[in-house]
Formats: sequence, C-alpha cells, structure tokens
Amino acid sequence: MTTKQFTLTLPPLSRGMHLITEQIEAKIKGGISIGLAHLFLQHTSASLCINENIDPTVRSDAETFLNDLVPEDYPKFRHTYEGSDDMPAHLKNMFLGTSLTIPITHGKLALGTWQGIYLFEHRDHAGSRAIIITLQGD
Amino acid sequence: MTTKQFTLTLPPLSRGMHLITEQIEAKIKGGISIGLAHLFLQHTSASLCINENIDPTVRSDAETFLNDLVPEDYPKFRHTYEGSDDMPAHLKNMFLGTSLTIPITHGKLALGTWQGIYLFEHRDHAGSRAIIITLQGD
Amino acid sequence: MTTKQFTLTLPPLSRGMHLITEQIEAKIKGGISIGLAHLFLQHTSASLCINENIDPTVRSDAETFLNDLVPEDYPKFRHTYEGSDDMPAHLKNMFLGTSLTIPITHGKLALGTWQGIYLFEHRDHAGSRAIIITLQGD
Repeated sequence: MTTKQFTLTLPPLSRGMHLITEQIEAKIKGGISIGLAHLFLQHTSASLCINENIDPTVRSDAETFLNDLVPEDYPKFRHTYEGSDDMPAHLKNMFLGTSLTIPITHGKLALGTWQGIYLFEHRDHAGSRAIIITLQGD
Repeated sequence: MTTKQFTLTLPPLSRGMHLITEQIEAKIKGGISIGLAHLFLQHTSASLCINENIDPTVRSDAETFLNDLVPEDYPKFRHTYEGSDDMPAHLKNMFLGTSLTIPITHGKLALGTWQGIYLFEHRDHAGSRAIIITLQGD
Repeated sequence: MTTKQFTLTLPPLSRGMHLITEQIEAKIKGGISIGLAHLFLQHTSASLCINENIDPTVRSDAETFLNDLVPEDYPKFRHTYEGSDDMPAHLKNMFLGTSLTIPITHGKLALGTWQGIYLFEHRDHAGSRAIIITLQGD
C-alpha cells in the first residue's frame, strides 16, 4: 500500500453547488488501482458533498432550502462582523461537512450512477478554495 | 497493510431507519485485525448514519423530525418530477451523509456500547441499495 | 504504510463546543509523516466537527442555532425518558457526525488557517467521552 497526496485549488466560485467530479477524477488518474480517495476542504464557509449529478434544479433547490433553514437575518447571531452570509456559511459547513472519502475500484472513483461530487460555496464573494486529496491503496 | 473491498447489497427497505450492524460485521469478519472500515452508499436518496442502537422510538423520532424539517410539500421545490419524497430525500442525504468510517480493533468494529450502524431509507418505494465496504489495515 | 491506533479520553465537558485541536495534535505527534488521521467518537449524544477556531461567538451562535433547530420541547418526541436534552442530542449527532478524517502532511494535521477540531457536547450532564484515533500512512 502507498499514500499519495496532492492539492487541488479551485478558483473563486459563485455561491451555490458546483460539480467538481471531473476535476477530482483528472487529479487522481493513475494514482492507485484499489483503495480510498479522501478529499479535505481547508475552509469553514464552504462544504464538500455528494448529490444527484444530472438535474440542475436539485442544486438550486438545495441552495434555496439551506438559505431558508439558516437565514442570514437570524436575529440571535452575534458573529456578524464578517458579513451576514458568514455565520450561516459556518453552520451549513457543519451540517454538510468538510471532507469526503470515496472508494476507488479499478483505478476509478466508485461513485453510483447518479452521484456527483460538489463544492458547495456558501459565501457571496469567496476566494479560491484548496482541497487536499489523499489516496491510500495499491 | 492491505486493502480489501467488497459490496454489500441490501434488499429494498421501507422508509425509515434500519439497523445493519450485524450485516456489516458479518461481511468484514476475518478481514483485518486493526485499521479502518469504510462504508460507502452508492445512492443519493438514502443515508448511512450511526445512532443509538436500542430504543426503537429513537428511530421513529428521527424519521418524524426529518420529515418535519424537510417537508414534502415545501412550496419552493422545483425538482418534483420524481415524486414529492425525492428532493427531501436528496437533502436528508446531504445532511446525514453517504459514507461512514469506523475503526477496527482486535478484528471488530470499535463501536461504542450504544452505537449502531443504520441505513436510513428516505424514499417511499426504494430499490435495493449497494454499499461498498473497504477495509484498510493489518 | 503503517496503522497506529490509540484512545483519547476527554473529561466530562459542559454543553457546547470545545476546541480540542491541541489535545489531538499532542496525541498524534510523532505518529506518521504523511497520511490520514481518523477520529471516532464512541458516543451518540455528542459530535465531532470542524469549525472556525478563533471567535467564541461562532461557537455560541452554533449552540444557539442548533437548540432552536432541534428544540427540547418538540411535541412529537417519544424518546424522552433519558431527559429532554437526549433525543435532540441524538439528532444533532446525526447532523454533525461521529467521526472526522484529516490529512497529515509533514507530520502535522493539514488543517486550514481557520479550522479547529471541536467536541460538540449536546448533553447537559455528560460523562467522559472516548475518541479512538487511527493513523494510517508512512
């Protein structure tokens, strides 16, 4: 078994869900044949998640629902000096998560037919985002 | 260290939480002595999670709460052509997650006394569900 | 590659978010140079999560928001015999999660600048909490 590790840096993205399956696949190509790929987002106001990879309304519905669930004008928030979208972003990140672990079989991500990997940007004006990719296997 | 990988296929299950600890334990038996077990559900409308493993009211309370949190008649949902339970299922999956990683110690899952592994089915009429199990360790 | 595994036991903590990055770093020091650290909480009424590591109002806002999201007096809960804070604790744990996987680079956790590791205690009067730490890498 071996460990391989590298960083994928994404440019600033708009608020919402962005499909990044292809960028991840390109980065891990030729890495290992069987094992696990671990993706770790080094930020606290965006998330990594897996969701349905075809219909764009799934992504917009998810954005809509999360904005209603964690409203920017929540009257009890005290952490507001970084903007009204900041504390909601931290909470969304806590709910959705910072990392993903995905099996690799025959050299490829063993995603289900409908599964895609998303960078879910929660800020209105985010900077670039770094994902550390760690492969472990043979 | 070694990597072992296999698939557990569950038959169609009713909506709600289903304890699958025993099926997972049976599948990984004899695999490794120390390391990690990774479970990956290849679907976007059911979830894998860990929760209290004794009292059935915990499971029914969780189903009730999630249904209230993500109502099927949410007026803003646009992704509705696969049924009113579909978009809520995608959101529940985003909140609960698609995979679990559990330590293995002395050849067994190192779960706490009250922890059980659940397949949380979010659809009313789901098909069978595939879980890819990856063991890494010695 | 090698696997190393040990347990970190935390004393009883008050309800809310507790930064434990330093305790984790102390425990894994000298373990591996490159690979992954997996943290597994053996309990169902507290969570492990990553969040902003500086401003204490992020932590109190998160506690406030979660308490409003999963209220203790939710009228439909049936699992109430362990106290009004118990079923909400199980749900918060399902939303936030039981384990974290974090890359290790140059012998250290590869956390982003603003990322800290938290034990999020959801009970009013919790006991001590055990975290199994598994390192895999070189």
